[in-house]
Amino acid sequence: MTSRVYASKKVIADTFFKKLEKDNFNAITISEIVGEANLSRSTFYRYFKNKYSIVQFFIEDLLDAYLLAVDEREIEDFTSLLVIYFEFWKKNKYYLELFKRHNLLDFALDIERKKFLKVLPYSDLPWHHNSSENELFADLTVIGGVWNISLYWLENDFQLEPADLAEEIVKSLSSYKIFI
Amino acid sequence: MTSRVYASKKVIADTFFKKLEKDNFNAITISEIVGEANLSRSTFYRYFKNKYSIVQFFIEDLLDAYLLAVDEREIEDFTSLLVIYFEFWKKNKYYLELFKRHNLLDFALDIERKKFLKVLPYSDLPWHHNSSENELFADLTVIGGVWNISLYWLENDFQLEPADLAEEIVKSLSSYKIFI
Repeated sequence: MTSRVYASKKVIADTFFKKLEKDNFNAITISEIVGEANLSRSTFYRYFKNKYSIVQFFIEDLLDAYLLAVDEREIEDFTSLLVIYFEFWKKNKYYLELFKRHNLLDFALDIERKKFLKVLPYSDLPWHHNSSENELFADLTVIGGVWNISLYWLENDFQLEPADLAEEIVKSLSSYKIFI
Repeated sequence: MTSRVYASKKVIADTFFKKLEKDNFNAITISEIVGEANLSRSTFYRYFKNKYSIVQFFIEDLLDAYLLAVDEREIEDFTSLLVIYFEFWKKNKYYLELFKRHNLLDFALDIERKKFLKVLPYSDLPWHHNSSENELFADLTVIGGVWNISLYWLENDFQLEPADLAEEIVKSLSSYKIFI
């Protein structure tokens, strides 16, 4: 994706997400989006199939920012990774709530699952580095586990700081690993 | 809940889920449901607030059947529990697909999370028996993890048998627990 293509897609996505603040997902039309973004319908359809493909682009773009944040930090252990994950969703809490309000959370989990399953085995983190076949179900468990914890955290209005949350999770998992 | 109340709620839920086979969630009216179930509107509103509360009842009823299956079997270890969980969703694959089609999967995860968090600490299973505060995040990880694996399994058309799937999961988690 060239930077010009990316910029056009981002304008469309930002316009759409701005409208989602007030309007119903189904009520927003492509004509309204392209009108407000000052683009033609043909430009829209060059990049997107429908409103769901805008959401997909937007979420993948969010997750790319998360993966970049992981790359840029020294990750010593699983706890540090969890801290970054929850800092990320805390910062993007607004979007989590928006996905919930528009019934897009399951769609978001689908995108996160597919994207992470693709990139995790090639990650530099010590538990991925051997990139064995064997990691599929551990990855799926962690992806679904942290997702579920984020939703629980959202429901409980983000009471815990990311660092405390990460520490609690690892403490809890540690005491249960004897059963695995 | 008396058995008469349960029976009425079940008739309403079954009628609604029968309609969901063909009709759109939003298009189905309460009048149609009570008409087909041969009940009055006032009976409906004694038991349910809206269509989402029917779905909630239906999913909680499904999960009760799962918890009963767990109670009735000798669970030796985490693997045996996973086998029952995935046997259960394999048997109820039709409903998972129906939830997906009607964009109800996130609602289903919310219900599963709340219900399991309530009952798990009082379960007789060896890893719950101490019912410590400490289990919250391990429970959330497992609830979200197996949910995510079920969705992955659904996407891949249930290729693996529940027993093989459970074994693969435990093998994968075992090799990753040194990082926790």
